[in-house]
Amino acid sequence: MYVIEYLTLERQHASDIMLLSLIMTSAEEQVLEANQDFYTALQDLKLEEMEALWLHDDWVRCVRPEWDMLEGWDAVREGWQKLFESIRYIRITMTVRSLQAEETVAWVCCTEKIHSASAGKFDSSHQDTTNIFKKENGNWYMVHHHSSLRYSSQTQGEHRELVQ
Amino acid sequence: MYVIEYLTLERQHASDIMLLSLIMTSAEEQVLEANQDFYTALQDLKLEEMEALWLHDDWVRCVRPEWDMLEGWDAVREGWQKLFESIRYIRITMTVRSLQAEETVAWVCCTEKIHSASAGKFDSSHQDTTNIFKKENGNWYMVHHHSSLRYSSQTQGEHRELVQ
Repeated sequence: MYVIEYLTLERQHASDIMLLSLIMTSAEEQVLEANQDFYTALQDLKLEEMEALWLHDDWVRCVRPEWDMLEGWDAVREGWQKLFESIRYIRITMTVRSLQAEETVAWVCCTEKIHSASAGKFDSSHQDTTNIFKKENGNWYMVHHHSSLRYSSQTQGEHRELVQ
Repeated sequence: MYVIEYLTLERQHASDIMLLSLIMTSAEEQVLEANQDFYTALQDLKLEEMEALWLHDDWVRCVRPEWDMLEGWDAVREGWQKLFESIRYIRITMTVRSLQAEETVAWVCCTEKIHSASAGKFDSSHQDTTNIFKKENGNWYMVHHHSSLRYSSQTQGEHRELVQ
């Protein structure tokens, strides 16, 4: 299990990657970078960054707790665009729980602690996430993102709080 | 998009597969079968069927709405065992929303309508699911299952009902 606390504010992930690179294959390193690029784009609220890291194809899918399933790149792009227009701030502490890289497909299983703010509202949640990447022309592109509110037997009833 | 209504009670899926096979590759057909084997095992409440279709490795993961994330085959097996001991009946109408098969990895994005019964309690839910399969020794094994309660903007507030 790779454990990477991903804190954009402190930009610590470069040193984490250096430590991990001692035990990771080149493909795993590239996938880890692609996975982190996704969280950077999300935290930066930058649609062009998000556009650059997804494969623009009809069969990509995106599942998030408060969206209908988004099917195809046009719908996925629109989903991120609406999210970025509606929230002002999002910070995610992401932990990689497993990373598997085959020749042209890789998937990352993560947990996320999310704090976000939109007009007058703050939201916190813990989520479990499956990210799938596909290698095309030497680059790993996101093709599937499935995120869901985390169940925890230890914190059941507390895992989602809404402060207004 | 492949649309397959999977109804174990009526055993209709063989004819659905015949229709789909006209437009599917051999790998896609095999993955579709492996995916259906998973739902058959789940509906049959048969642990040995579930054991046969998962890869027994430390890095497999299983995320379901009312479990902690299960990490590694031993934990995943125990999760299914407990589920099968606690419920008496489960029926799932599964719709495949996308299926992608590369050389050794495939993933299926599905929606599920679930009706289940345990001691004196009936439960219904709609879920979105990501299933990942890995090909080893010519067979496709499940290596990742991520299922979450479905958000729907059309049925928000109605997507989960509990009848006691």
